[in-house]
Amino acid sequence: MMSDKLSRRMLISIPGIPAIIALIWVGGIYFAIFMTVVMLIAITEFYALAKVNELTPVRWIGWLMTLLIGYIYYFQPAMQYKQIILVIIAFVTCVLLIELFRNRPSPTLNIAITLMGVLYIPVLLGALIGVRNWDSVYHSNMTFGIIIAIWICDTAAYVVGKKWGRKKIFKRVSPNKTVAGTIGGYVGALLTFVVMKETGFLGSGFRWIDVLAFSIITGIFGQLGDFVESLIKRDAGVKDSGTILLGHGGVLDRFDSLILASPIAYLYLITLS
Amino acid sequence: MMSDKLSRRMLISIPGIPAIIALIWVGGIYFAIFMTVVMLIAITEFYALAKVNELTPVRWIGWLMTLLIGYIYYFQPAMQYKQIILVIIAFVTCVLLIELFRNRPSPTLNIAITLMGVLYIPVLLGALIGVRNWDSVYHSNMTFGIIIAIWICDTAAYVVGKKWGRKKIFKRVSPNKTVAGTIGGYVGALLTFVVMKETGFLGSGFRWIDVLAFSIITGIFGQLGDFVESLIKRDAGVKDSGTILLGHGGVLDRFDSLILASPIAYLYLITLS
Repeated sequence: MMSDKLSRRMLISIPGIPAIIALIWVGGIYFAIFMTVVMLIAITEFYALAKVNELTPVRWIGWLMTLLIGYIYYFQPAMQYKQIILVIIAFVTCVLLIELFRNRPSPTLNIAITLMGVLYIPVLLGALIGVRNWDSVYHSNMTFGIIIAIWICDTAAYVVGKKWGRKKIFKRVSPNKTVAGTIGGYVGALLTFVVMKETGFLGSGFRWIDVLAFSIITGIFGQLGDFVESLIKRDAGVKDSGTILLGHGGVLDRFDSLILASPIAYLYLITLS
Repeated sequence: MMSDKLSRRMLISIPGIPAIIALIWVGGIYFAIFMTVVMLIAITEFYALAKVNELTPVRWIGWLMTLLIGYIYYFQPAMQYKQIILVIIAFVTCVLLIELFRNRPSPTLNIAITLMGVLYIPVLLGALIGVRNWDSVYHSNMTFGIIIAIWICDTAAYVVGKKWGRKKIFKRVSPNKTVAGTIGGYVGALLTFVVMKETGFLGSGFRWIDVLAFSIITGIFGQLGDFVESLIKRDAGVKDSGTILLGHGGVLDRFDSLILASPIAYLYLITLS
């Protein structure tokens, strides 16, 4: 039976899913811009959660760093040691000095949340831009593979959890998630990669060890990313990170699995495959 | 007249100053180890300040990252883009996942403070190890120059402030600092570098533009680093970051000027000289 929430969700899913598929397909600068916009909204939602603690992070530094990190993940400029050090030192120093002259309550926590927003959102999530670039270079479909596996993982977790879920897996953080649902989610991700390997969707270079690795990245780290975001939202006492996507909550809610899965997938691709 | 505090301070200054001079002189791995120990104590003091907000940062991650960053600044391994990304992503992911399973109050702020400790202490202060390495390569004395200029800046600020200081410069953050003292501090730093240039202490390659640059780095950014630490301590409601150095307060109190001056000096050396 279709719930009211589900029907509201479809309002955004019906135009949203084909649009995202098209953006992944086209790739290049279009996908990079899309992801950068996603990260700008997500970091704004994250900073808004800090308001619950009456904190006022320096949002524009977060936005500027998001643009810079999107740029770096897309263009992968041949940065040397000194340039990377320059970016990191300039970032931290600016946040410290701006807060010094801002005269707001809780300056230390404002600094800490400003820094965390950048490390949590663009540094981690931006890696998906790197994954899409990798696809362009190696004529692969890993971005599709990861996103489809996460969608199927979420759906399998929901369906299996509804049908067989009894024992809660992590009540403190996500009171609705069950052991059965979480296992169902992992199996869903695993089967997705098995099918994608068997059909050759991910290319002939995709080994069985990669099936295992990516099932863990999407099915386990993806769900851990979901738990981390739940932890942060529970801590702030809110249910959704935003309302921009109607029944889907905020952008941060929709991309939480990708926040941990993308950087680990990216590292795996550039170092181990 | 020598105050009681001043006499207690000398208990640590008399053996401390020659020891530090010797360590800078010897340089190499000895200075790197010394600075790493300083950073380990300083980050522990910083994390202790968080207790005031009833936060519990993940201290051992901060210690591990301090060791790693000390190693990187000293050995400057030929890290490529992918290795740097690996370190950053692994660091952030570990902090998120550890806090997820820790079950402490205020998890978001614990994560934020843990991350900030690493960015504020070893990432910035560790650059002094890089400065000392630069000295070894170019047969220079920049580490001595910076530390002497900061000592003279502090002393000049104190003496001038006591004698002529009336108007407060930044009452909200440092109620005792005066305009006259701060200007006196800058002039002290400037004169230090003028004398060091004229005597050839910093080598024949040290230009007048470098005198100006380093007077700003030590005399202005050094004092700003002092203000930033005062901001953080005031926010936590404490006067000293620790008591390890008797009348000198904590290690963080003694190295606060170097926290901002070192990374900017290091960037200047490796990019502009």
